[in-house]
Amino acid sequence: MDYLKALNLPFDTPFMVVDIEWTRKNIRKMQDVADRNGKKLRPHSKTHKIPELSKMEIEAGAVGVCVQKTAEAEIMFYGGVKNILLSNETFGSKFLRLGKLASMGCDITVAVDNVPALDQFSEVCKQLGIHGNVLIDVNIGMNRCGVEPERVDSLIEGIKSHVNLNLAGIMAYDGHVNDPDVRKREEEVRAEESIIEPIIRKIRPYCSDDPVVSVGGTPTAEIWAKSSLATELQPGTYVYYDVHCMRQNLCTIDEISMGVVSMCTSESQGDRIVLDAGYKSVAIDQGVYPMVMDAYGNEYKVLSMSEEHTVLKAKDNSSHLGQRFLLLPYHACTTTDLWDSAYVFDGNNQPYSLPIRGRGKRE
Amino acid sequence: MDYLKALNLPFDTPFMVVDIEWTRKNIRKMQDVADRNGKKLRPHSKTHKIPELSKMEIEAGAVGVCVQKTAEAEIMFYGGVKNILLSNETFGSKFLRLGKLASMGCDITVAVDNVPALDQFSEVCKQLGIHGNVLIDVNIGMNRCGVEPERVDSLIEGIKSHVNLNLAGIMAYDGHVNDPDVRKREEEVRAEESIIEPIIRKIRPYCSDDPVVSVGGTPTAEIWAKSSLATELQPGTYVYYDVHCMRQNLCTIDEISMGVVSMCTSESQGDRIVLDAGYKSVAIDQGVYPMVMDAYGNEYKVLSMSEEHTVLKAKDNSSHLGQRFLLLPYHACTTTDLWDSAYVFDGNNQPYSLPIRGRGKRE
Repeated sequence: MDYLKALNLPFDTPFMVVDIEWTRKNIRKMQDVADRNGKKLRPHSKTHKIPELSKMEIEAGAVGVCVQKTAEAEIMFYGGVKNILLSNETFGSKFLRLGKLASMGCDITVAVDNVPALDQFSEVCKQLGIHGNVLIDVNIGMNRCGVEPERVDSLIEGIKSHVNLNLAGIMAYDGHVNDPDVRKREEEVRAEESIIEPIIRKIRPYCSDDPVVSVGGTPTAEIWAKSSLATELQPGTYVYYDVHCMRQNLCTIDEISMGVVSMCTSESQGDRIVLDAGYKSVAIDQGVYPMVMDAYGNEYKVLSMSEEHTVLKAKDNSSHLGQRFLLLPYHACTTTDLWDSAYVFDGNNQPYSLPIRGRGKRE
Repeated sequence: MDYLKALNLPFDTPFMVVDIEWTRKNIRKMQDVADRNGKKLRPHSKTHKIPELSKMEIEAGAVGVCVQKTAEAEIMFYGGVKNILLSNETFGSKFLRLGKLASMGCDITVAVDNVPALDQFSEVCKQLGIHGNVLIDVNIGMNRCGVEPERVDSLIEGIKSHVNLNLAGIMAYDGHVNDPDVRKREEEVRAEESIIEPIIRKIRPYCSDDPVVSVGGTPTAEIWAKSSLATELQPGTYVYYDVHCMRQNLCTIDEISMGVVSMCTSESQGDRIVLDAGYKSVAIDQGVYPMVMDAYGNEYKVLSMSEEHTVLKAKDNSSHLGQRFLLLPYHACTTTDLWDSAYVFDGNNQPYSLPIRGRGKRE
């Protein structure tokens, strides 16, 4: 992020900024990792929720996107993205919404971890006269969604029993693997490979093509890229990076391409600097404050945060009223979701506002 | 909240619900506290950010609203609220936006804690040919915004030096006072009274009317209502209450009138229930998970939360796929700010969607 240019943008504070040149570099860097290793890249759109940025990722070489929500799939499709994986479980009425996207020409695949969901998806496909693409979502240690490895057979049987469902492969997401030490992450990925290898062998006869093996968040994507088992990487946060990524040694501070610009509106002289952005503007869902920098990259200590305020420790007793600061979030995905739009700048041309169209699309 | 009716609303999950009858009761209850003690009530709109609910509060007897942001003031004014206190510091370009609201007939008052802001506000009022109403914001222990009590004189001098500024009184907000023990809260309010009493005496000669003394959040409003010093109460969260309020012994669980309805979309049999709403839907800025209830008010233990998931401990090994649960947030103000609209129901008539017009209005 070019702090000086970000802080000088001519907008009322607080506002969210995206340095589009650094964002391009981040996109290029991850695409190179995929290309170099012969893998497909399918970025999560949940980090930015901006169809224009997903299309930038696709122009750089990505095969499509992951979404977490049916409503996000709709936003992405109507925004021009034609290849979508719902990399999350859904149930009930939303299969009809997904089926309708498929009917309109969306190449959509759904992650499924239970037989009743397969039955519902098949029923919708029957109503609409289409085939449904399914990835079996396997739990490889995150202990959230995903069928337990020993129960994969029930899913294969479930898919076989519906002629209008197509088994495309597996998804095995490891968002829990985020040790700052890359060797520890590598060890965990090796253990995960030993879980999915027999599953891939098992499903292969039931897949019309080579099975998709969609794996890897930002912390593990580069490790999975070198695995012979993976076919597709699904990182998300790398598009902007954040302070959490930096602490995991995945990026430098300069590569963090998104932040929130805030201004000092109150101060106790020689003591505290109070900014006009709090945790309604920069997410603290991980319990960690943002990094706060001035225009020259000097870091300030955060003393406290509340809904609309961040309180900094002053370095001296000069007045800071009206001074702007850049807040770099610990978690980009939840921070962007707080904003209706971002201001985008490239350092040279007129900055512009880009709507975060997927924000708040929860269902 | 009527759980059974909330959970049965015919909308795709997750969605935010407001039980409007319980909300009315909450509004009535706080207005009665103010009326009984001869105080004015000026609720914070930042909890709900819905002009229609602010108007409901005003119809019940409130004098106007508090807002935290200039953009919230605009949303409230265009939504029909004519009497607004910006109960937060602002600086620079936003004074012009506030002045323009005043020019259009908004009865607006601004909290100020520094002389440069007074100079800016006066300059804008001069440009627009209007008078500006100011409350001196005093720090009574929250150590965020607010002038230190021993420096109030500089603010009085600042206001006196501008003939187009009107000193209306003081604001002294104590959001830090939230002990569950009401006697401890009462002790803290007594200590705060001893800070503001000499300040009120000091400013009285410079106020055209009896000075406004605007104090008290939801945890202290009822205590301040009995204080001879207070003239105006400014609670916010009471409109919906939340689990934090309940833990502070301010409300019962039934009185919490806002929540998020979510559905089980994945499960590991006999072990965990995975819901389709996480902390992008229910705020965990205080680091505390929501309470999760089924339609009959049975509570479930939250094992973990992530962006789009809440994982519950199952009570038995029956299937929960498709079952709905109600998430009661620990913090209502940040949770409502995650939603574009709420579904409102009264138990009898057709539920309807109410836009949260102030959501994301940050500047």
